[in-house]
Amino acid sequence: MGLSIGIYGGSGYAGVELVRLLAGHPEVGALRVASRGYAGLGISEVYPQLAVDGEYVSPEEIEAGGLDVAFVAYGHGESAETVRELLEAGARLVVDLSADFRLSEAELYGEWYGGHPAPELLGEAHYGLPEVFGASEGRLIANPGCYPTAAILALAPVVRRVGGIRSVTINALSGVSGAGAKPSVKTHFVSVNESANAYGAPLHRHTPEIETALRRVGHVPEVTFVPHLIPITRGELETIVVDLEDVPGAEEVLGWYAEDYREWAFVEAREEYPHVAHVANTNRCRLSAAVDRRAGKLLLFSAVDNLLKGASGAAVQNMNLALGYEEDLGLEHLK
Amino acid sequence: MGLSIGIYGGSGYAGVELVRLLAGHPEVGALRVASRGYAGLGISEVYPQLAVDGEYVSPEEIEAGGLDVAFVAYGHGESAETVRELLEAGARLVVDLSADFRLSEAELYGEWYGGHPAPELLGEAHYGLPEVFGASEGRLIANPGCYPTAAILALAPVVRRVGGIRSVTINALSGVSGAGAKPSVKTHFVSVNESANAYGAPLHRHTPEIETALRRVGHVPEVTFVPHLIPITRGELETIVVDLEDVPGAEEVLGWYAEDYREWAFVEAREEYPHVAHVANTNRCRLSAAVDRRAGKLLLFSAVDNLLKGASGAAVQNMNLALGYEEDLGLEHLK
Amino acid sequence: MGLSIGIYGGSGYAGVELVRLLAGHPEVGALRVASRGYAGLGISEVYPQLAVDGEYVSPEEIEAGGLDVAFVAYGHGESAETVRELLEAGARLVVDLSADFRLSEAELYGEWYGGHPAPELLGEAHYGLPEVFGASEGRLIANPGCYPTAAILALAPVVRRVGGIRSVTINALSGVSGAGAKPSVKTHFVSVNESANAYGAPLHRHTPEIETALRRVGHVPEVTFVPHLIPITRGELETIVVDLEDVPGAEEVLGWYAEDYREWAFVEAREEYPHVAHVANTNRCRLSAAVDRRAGKLLLFSAVDNLLKGASGAAVQNMNLALGYEEDLGLEHLK
Amino acid sequence: MGLSIGIYGGSGYAGVELVRLLAGHPEVGALRVASRGYAGLGISEVYPQLAVDGEYVSPEEIEAGGLDVAFVAYGHGESAETVRELLEAGARLVVDLSADFRLSEAELYGEWYGGHPAPELLGEAHYGLPEVFGASEGRLIANPGCYPTAAILALAPVVRRVGGIRSVTINALSGVSGAGAKPSVKTHFVSVNESANAYGAPLHRHTPEIETALRRVGHVPEVTFVPHLIPITRGELETIVVDLEDVPGAEEVLGWYAEDYREWAFVEAREEYPHVAHVANTNRCRLSAAVDRRAGKLLLFSAVDNLLKGASGAAVQNMNLALGYEEDLGLEHLK
Repeated sequence: MGLSIGIYGGSGYAGVELVRLLAGHPEVGALRVASRGYAGLGISEVYPQLAVDGEYVSPEEIEAGGLDVAFVAYGHGESAETVRELLEAGARLVVDLSADFRLSEAELYGEWYGGHPAPELLGEAHYGLPEVFGASEGRLIANPGCYPTAAILALAPVVRRVGGIRSVTINALSGVSGAGAKPSVKTHFVSVNESANAYGAPLHRHTPEIETALRRVGHVPEVTFVPHLIPITRGELETIVVDLEDVPGAEEVLGWYAEDYREWAFVEAREEYPHVAHVANTNRCRLSAAVDRRAGKLLLFSAVDNLLKGASGAAVQNMNLALGYEEDLGLEHLK
Repeated sequence: MGLSIGIYGGSGYAGVELVRLLAGHPEVGALRVASRGYAGLGISEVYPQLAVDGEYVSPEEIEAGGLDVAFVAYGHGESAETVRELLEAGARLVVDLSADFRLSEAELYGEWYGGHPAPELLGEAHYGLPEVFGASEGRLIANPGCYPTAAILALAPVVRRVGGIRSVTINALSGVSGAGAKPSVKTHFVSVNESANAYGAPLHRHTPEIETALRRVGHVPEVTFVPHLIPITRGELETIVVDLEDVPGAEEVLGWYAEDYREWAFVEAREEYPHVAHVANTNRCRLSAAVDRRAGKLLLFSAVDNLLKGASGAAVQNMNLALGYEEDLGLEHLK
Repeated sequence: MGLSIGIYGGSGYAGVELVRLLAGHPEVGALRVASRGYAGLGISEVYPQLAVDGEYVSPEEIEAGGLDVAFVAYGHGESAETVRELLEAGARLVVDLSADFRLSEAELYGEWYGGHPAPELLGEAHYGLPEVFGASEGRLIANPGCYPTAAILALAPVVRRVGGIRSVTINALSGVSGAGAKPSVKTHFVSVNESANAYGAPLHRHTPEIETALRRVGHVPEVTFVPHLIPITRGELETIVVDLEDVPGAEEVLGWYAEDYREWAFVEAREEYPHVAHVANTNRCRLSAAVDRRAGKLLLFSAVDNLLKGASGAAVQNMNLALGYEEDLGLEHLK
Repeated sequence: MGLSIGIYGGSGYAGVELVRLLAGHPEVGALRVASRGYAGLGISEVYPQLAVDGEYVSPEEIEAGGLDVAFVAYGHGESAETVRELLEAGARLVVDLSADFRLSEAELYGEWYGGHPAPELLGEAHYGLPEVFGASEGRLIANPGCYPTAAILALAPVVRRVGGIRSVTINALSGVSGAGAKPSVKTHFVSVNESANAYGAPLHRHTPEIETALRRVGHVPEVTFVPHLIPITRGELETIVVDLEDVPGAEEVLGWYAEDYREWAFVEAREEYPHVAHVANTNRCRLSAAVDRRAGKLLLFSAVDNLLKGASGAAVQNMNLALGYEEDLGLEHLK
């Protein structure tokens, strides 16, 4: 029969990737894709790069109670209400790709987002970075942000093992798909091409997500997070500078990565610094490390494809794990 | 009559920009352009984007003693010998665009470059960042590196005023012209496009240049410098994170910039973070500042065009100042 | 005193280039820049890449009667009314960058644009491609379209000399600035990057402009014009295939170009096929020719920067010529 | 057990794609990858974007007689000798990705390539464009060129049905991977980025390949083929202008495409003109058609990924068909 799947927000960039991945997933039976803007149009007409049959439907057309898995790819703040309805209607598993359930404390939503529409559900959500926090056993998975995915995978093995971290600065480079599909001056080709700029610093909302997750693993001070936009379509690269008392060797850190991620298919550390091209169009995270002995700092490098390991690839991986499949089912070609 | 100018290394990217700028400079009379690889070929045949008459000559064909100004745009280590010969032959002013005279101490060359071929000349060179160190009064100008230009212009006004700087991390993004004109796997379009990567960290040779220059202004600890390659042709953006005891306000820092650079045509601070596109194809440096109060850090942003303010534009500006012209003579359209 | 200049539509891409060029033009005195969307904002705040003092004003704030030259950079169909008002108010010269006065016959506007709002003015307009049609002697200049500029400069010397042209196909590649500054799905970085597509064929509105202009020079059949969008910011390249009875030699054609454009500063033919990079950020048109003897066809190649020779650079050149200045005044660095 | 596969030339761009595809192919058992330059190095060390175990070997290390399928991805002229040796050694099937066996007549090699090293084998080769010429039944497949693939798929259904074709002009745009992995000034990022240029016209060697294949289907005059380089990594777009006596309607042509390619998984026609992004990273060919009634011409549009449907994807598809598998086996995610 196969799984009955619903995608909400199937016409944003993350939604399109979900459609592509799930249309090719061997356990998926019925796939319904909702889009508020494109309901009634053929999916492949709207996105000719998707060779997928079927039309976008409106969210109401999906019978939520019959879903094995619902993916919600709405914007931040728009998702929580739909998630609540899906859970109440009886969807077996909900994977939310927004930020609405990534922080566990309502106060943090107050501070960074101005509040939360469904605080009672925060405790039910599993933060879906399986390489650090394992598979979900509940019904609600908060799929991590793209920047936090790269940052936490690089930092968790360090934070877990060393104390005395005085300072963490994350310098991130992101492709333009991270800014979403909505046209704006900022995403106009002419604005982005042959340019680069910092934005959103020093108070980008991914900061508390990174801190919250890492503090479940060890001690971390307030993180400085500076994202930049660069003229590529997809992919992210983070260069993380850690100031700490006793700087470990780069090989030692590579060893920690090897140890912690040995069982996981998509995370790998190498001596060579990762390039975005090494991970683009894959579900990989590639890591590396170096030491600046003169300045006494540890440098970590981490790259992901923001739409795959940073969003939809991870969402499918989370679904796989929650339902008891291999983590890479349907994702084998993205390893 | 006009100035008699010689360019050595006129077929690299910096050399090509020098040709373009000097061919349009109102005080330039005779312009002779040497290229070891292209001697005998028309300049505009080799670089059709240059609408300049004349041919490349071999270095030996230039009568060095008759030059008012000689620009040397050779690679690092290849320049010193030519500079010495030019000075001995009687060239009135030599502007060296390599790293060969940027550090004042021979020991630093020993440490970072494995030695120096003309240590006795190090004391004669003026470090040509006029907005910080003024005009040259001697015969030899060491034109600053592109990364150091952006870094020192952003940091000097801070270092000059505040103590207690605990840590400086420079995260730099560079276009591919910074890697030079020589074809390689690293500069192949397919390698660079849709990618980004850190390189040369944590021991890039621009590090001691930055430290040396800033320590003439105030106290700075060892600097961590991490350059990245991004898929743009020209331009550089630096995000500099300063960890210090008493973090000043961003507006205060913008005020320091306004004060220090008031008299200078090409350096300007704004509240808006600089984009590479704001400085590309100009001789500008654009600066900004922000404060991460949570983490107690000062963020500085600095952008330059690596081939203009980061190389050839600055070289012409240095020539102008050394010869008593306005700094922007022949550069008016690059402000 | 200098010329009193008004720019209408000073915040689109062509308008921004006009501001840049005219702010540096030696004969310009007062420069007033109108923008319907940005009135009241600093020009350099809206476009930080423009180092120009002053604010955008609303069109009504400009005293039209006192203008020596008015540039109108509105969209097609929006321009004619403003042009009429400017002429009536007494502006000495109006340079219209829209398509509203490029065709001389009202019927063509009926056929391709659905009509014309000021047909009585069509006869007054001079088609401002000076290398083919000379300087304007009247008060209204219709600045050519970017695609027609490249096409007519390549074709006119051929059409002028040879008969028996059976077919003309223009294959054009354009950068994204040609699609205008307004954000849309089509100009989103993610839509354009790593892609290319034909659009607007086979009935793009530049077709009758090309045919009309060439038929003032010689016989031309209906032209097939196929524009494509490619992921560059600025520049256009046209490959023109001419099917004709007696195919001339490529060198013969290069000779015709040399002869016809000898007196003109910005048009040059070379054996080497033009690259967009050879003309980007200049006011040049670069031409070349080849012959396919097997198939009996003449190939012409033509490249311009769509924002300069294809729009604002040509507009300033047209102004210079109409006012009796050298054609390259204020454009010397764009040769 | 699985198929025993050898790849010769596994470190060029086509070779890398072959490795990626065959490493994930369900019927492949042993996969040996030869590279003359990288023998002894880990495949994933040389190409970190390939998550493939194993090392490059030298060609001699592969026991050719035991191969079920050998893929030869050498440059043109370098391939024939290896192909002959493979056939003599007993390899069951050889798929040659070079041009060495694409033309059936030795005279054409004399005319366009200056001769052929193994003319006696020309008759044995099957031209591997299965959608037009079916599956191979012999031991040697000449995998088509990327440009011819797009051209022939667009033209064959037309040539098959209509007479009176007077002229065919193919205007092609290609990404830089089409120029190969070897670094050169032409593929330097700075040369390609923000530019575009025609090259190789009017006598590009793909011309006779296109003519030869189409003349097996119907009458075609000498083809004019003009390729251009544009700044994208992968993908090709062809705009084909056909001058013929009785111009069919665009819908009629779309109907022919639907009819001819109904049974084939990777070729599809649509009303919307194809974008490179619609086919990049897939094994698709997307087609469209339009009619210029004014000029009496038929326009065809065709897009492929030059490394997949234009090279390695087609090679695997050809292998599948020759061995009796479904054409899309191992290529399902590239439909």
